[in-house]
Amino acid sequence: MIGLRRKSPFPYSLSSILSPRISSTSLRAFLPMRPLTSESLNPSVLNVQYAVRGELAIKAEDLRAKLKEDNHGLPFDKVISSNIGNPQQKGLDQPPITFTRQVAALMEWPALAELAPDAFPKDVIARAKELSEEIGSIGAYSHSQGVPFIRQNVAKFIEERDGYPSNPDHIFLTAGASAGVSLLISMLISTPKAGILIPIPQYPLYTATLAQYNGVPIPYHLDETMDWATSVHEIEGAIEKAHRDGVHAKALVIINPGNPTGALLDEETQKKLVELCQKYSLVLLADEVYQTNLHKPDTHPFSSFKKIVCDLQSPTALISFHSISKGISGECGRRGGYFECTNVSEEVLALIYKMVSVGLCPPLGGQIGVDSMIRPPKPGDESYDLWKQETDTIHDALRHRTHTMAERLNGLPGVTCVKSPGALYLYPQIRLSDKAIEAAKKAGKEPDAFYALELLHETGICVVPGSGFGQKDGEWHYRLTCLCPGVDEYVGKLEKFHQGFVERYGSA
Amino acid sequence: MIGLRRKSPFPYSLSSILSPRISSTSLRAFLPMRPLTSESLNPSVLNVQYAVRGELAIKAEDLRAKLKEDNHGLPFDKVISSNIGNPQQKGLDQPPITFTRQVAALMEWPALAELAPDAFPKDVIARAKELSEEIGSIGAYSHSQGVPFIRQNVAKFIEERDGYPSNPDHIFLTAGASAGVSLLISMLISTPKAGILIPIPQYPLYTATLAQYNGVPIPYHLDETMDWATSVHEIEGAIEKAHRDGVHAKALVIINPGNPTGALLDEETQKKLVELCQKYSLVLLADEVYQTNLHKPDTHPFSSFKKIVCDLQSPTALISFHSISKGISGECGRRGGYFECTNVSEEVLALIYKMVSVGLCPPLGGQIGVDSMIRPPKPGDESYDLWKQETDTIHDALRHRTHTMAERLNGLPGVTCVKSPGALYLYPQIRLSDKAIEAAKKAGKEPDAFYALELLHETGICVVPGSGFGQKDGEWHYRLTCLCPGVDEYVGKLEKFHQGFVERYGSA
Repeated sequence: MIGLRRKSPFPYSLSSILSPRISSTSLRAFLPMRPLTSESLNPSVLNVQYAVRGELAIKAEDLRAKLKEDNHGLPFDKVISSNIGNPQQKGLDQPPITFTRQVAALMEWPALAELAPDAFPKDVIARAKELSEEIGSIGAYSHSQGVPFIRQNVAKFIEERDGYPSNPDHIFLTAGASAGVSLLISMLISTPKAGILIPIPQYPLYTATLAQYNGVPIPYHLDETMDWATSVHEIEGAIEKAHRDGVHAKALVIINPGNPTGALLDEETQKKLVELCQKYSLVLLADEVYQTNLHKPDTHPFSSFKKIVCDLQSPTALISFHSISKGISGECGRRGGYFECTNVSEEVLALIYKMVSVGLCPPLGGQIGVDSMIRPPKPGDESYDLWKQETDTIHDALRHRTHTMAERLNGLPGVTCVKSPGALYLYPQIRLSDKAIEAAKKAGKEPDAFYALELLHETGICVVPGSGFGQKDGEWHYRLTCLCPGVDEYVGKLEKFHQGFVERYGSA
Repeated sequence: MIGLRRKSPFPYSLSSILSPRISSTSLRAFLPMRPLTSESLNPSVLNVQYAVRGELAIKAEDLRAKLKEDNHGLPFDKVISSNIGNPQQKGLDQPPITFTRQVAALMEWPALAELAPDAFPKDVIARAKELSEEIGSIGAYSHSQGVPFIRQNVAKFIEERDGYPSNPDHIFLTAGASAGVSLLISMLISTPKAGILIPIPQYPLYTATLAQYNGVPIPYHLDETMDWATSVHEIEGAIEKAHRDGVHAKALVIINPGNPTGALLDEETQKKLVELCQKYSLVLLADEVYQTNLHKPDTHPFSSFKKIVCDLQSPTALISFHSISKGISGECGRRGGYFECTNVSEEVLALIYKMVSVGLCPPLGGQIGVDSMIRPPKPGDESYDLWKQETDTIHDALRHRTHTMAERLNGLPGVTCVKSPGALYLYPQIRLSDKAIEAAKKAGKEPDAFYALELLHETGICVVPGSGFGQKDGEWHYRLTCLCPGVDEYVGKLEKFHQGFVERYGSA
């Protein structure tokens, strides 16, 4: 119902209607008795907030629709959805990895291997054949936990990444990382006084899911002055404060590389975090979906929490999430991902299996996307050179855009931006004048939402205000993705807007 | 962890392991302190039951794995998973509709239209081009409610089916019907005393989801002696009984055509049901995923509840669910479906949108599957003849198998089976002797589960015991799908097993 505004509600010919029935207008006359009102719904639903697709995103869709009209009168000719890490969206057009799509096309219609053999590299044909033998049709439900063969491949990928064993029976393929996070939170919240430690700023999936399942978010702040560092001391303070409030901290969410911050943890900090989980019997929920989006891998490498838990021989229960939506894969629309359980009992694994079985199975398109991501072509394979070239291009472009954006945002008055070494985002702080804050108040908006709305209406660039991710009182930020074609033009628009905003409202 | 038994937990070469780290055995030594135990989880999770993928299905997977061993010693050479309506699964091998897969292959890798133009019919190429222009990459997130263009097509399909307007803004594309049902139930359960009327027998998604969200299932029985008819009187009795128990009935679930019963409602009954919903302010949840699986369409046609609500000009809030997993599409693995909201306020629609936005979007593979299902080739299109032939074959085979199975099951001593006019299942009643019931009790099983387990171990046929769907006290049933290759051989196995069972335990 949102983002789809048809000029007439019923544009289709109704001449095919067989009997004299009612029009939409007369239907409306029958609406007064409505059992389905917001007051009658689960009150938790009303508390859910998800800014990434909230007011700004809805307005952006409206503007995108308006752009299609003649004489739209808007001061821009395209909407750039920097509110969401969606690399392949229209306007950004990051091309998919050819290998992934060739395998998927053959899985959709295996006859193509005979009908058009020259269209496909040999290793692609072999890969699709191997997958088909294991899976059968991708139109069939798979094992609820995901195709066993693909889970074996994921386990091998994890073993090669970390140097420790991984058990395919402890891996669950999912419809993107979000589905896994939501499931685990729904299982962990045992009482309305059960809480989960959430970084601030956070990715709002966590608070939204906690609201849905009546859990308590226990915020801990990341330190912007230390490049968004995670402090064990800060988390311990949050646990103890929660305890004083009668809230029991059950799990710790760590997003590494960070969203929206782009920060990367070093192993020393990771070890302290695992020890903290052990001390307080916290389940560690490690959101590692940006693990391959590294802009400075030499100085800022990624280590998985699985490796750290194994290094420490820690008994900490760890659930680590990965996804095909990010990285260089960017296959958001397939809905694919997985989570691996470490130090989780067979009994709890059986309960997780039962819960996922109610949803039958993750989408097969997402499952084969996972397989392509964790088993890319190897040197010597016919597909390798193209794969290498495509992925290098994506890595380089992201690194370049992230660097350029941060540099130039830092050059603006009242703006400071941590130079993120990972993920897809920047999270600049904007200092706003009293006049701007006053204008926001008049408009009934948070000051950063006010700034973001003006940005959208002036430039067509849609970002998410910091209030959606969390920030300290009196601070204002926004998150923008580092995905855009033509970074100079894009940043130029941001700069011009900001300068105009400062001219209108003064500097802080 | 289930259905995947590797001979060694870590078959991969660990020679690539870089440093002296721990083995899986030493990991186990660190397991004593585990914060993640079943006692610490959300207690609702423990109450969830989903028999379709429960004990029988898990045992069937184990047997399937065992069959791969040399000298497995089992008295059958294949496992037939009649526990789940999964037409394209291995062993059943109902072929996908070529049109659907050709469109999907082109969406995966659009370059194929140039690389192998002769491999595709012209209407397929045109369709994929049209979809690509609307969607862009299927690797991008779509609108959270589903691609607007596809929702417009769904609305048109509904208008043509029912003769009434349909608003694409009131349609939500989903990851299969299950995802939509689960969402709506999670939103409707506002207190632990909120209940939902569920047919008995039911598809266990409903009770599983109610258990998960702490809602009360309010059972109403279908009448087996009247071919599983739905009685308004029976439902009214259930509402009033619930009311006496302090439970507030908020919604009525109707599965039409029925699962597991295969029964079809006539319009007269449907009208009474809509009036009942109006009288008691119930939201009508109409599970209509089998709407095209009709075996006797002349005498038992399908009418949608949307049509009935419009015929009556009723203000009843209706959510109707459809899916690509069933019908002749059988595309379970894509995870695609939709629900349409009728007489639902903009305010509640906005809340539904907010909830689906947290999950980002339904899988694009499922969304384009919906489009292919509701916009099949038309007479005159290059693809039409093949599509017609394929779908006729599937309809005919299903009709034939359903008829043959019911006839022959009815010929067995102690077995009666309603001849289902719709859906994919039969739900025979089996009368069991005291000796059989005693043997089941000794084995710690429900008598029908005991029967089904013996059936599985003797024939490799996996069915679901009636206790998973609900039945009257002292009655026993099982559900089997009408999907199998070689119906004579299949029913022959059922007959032989049943006769042996009666010889062993006597007749009731």
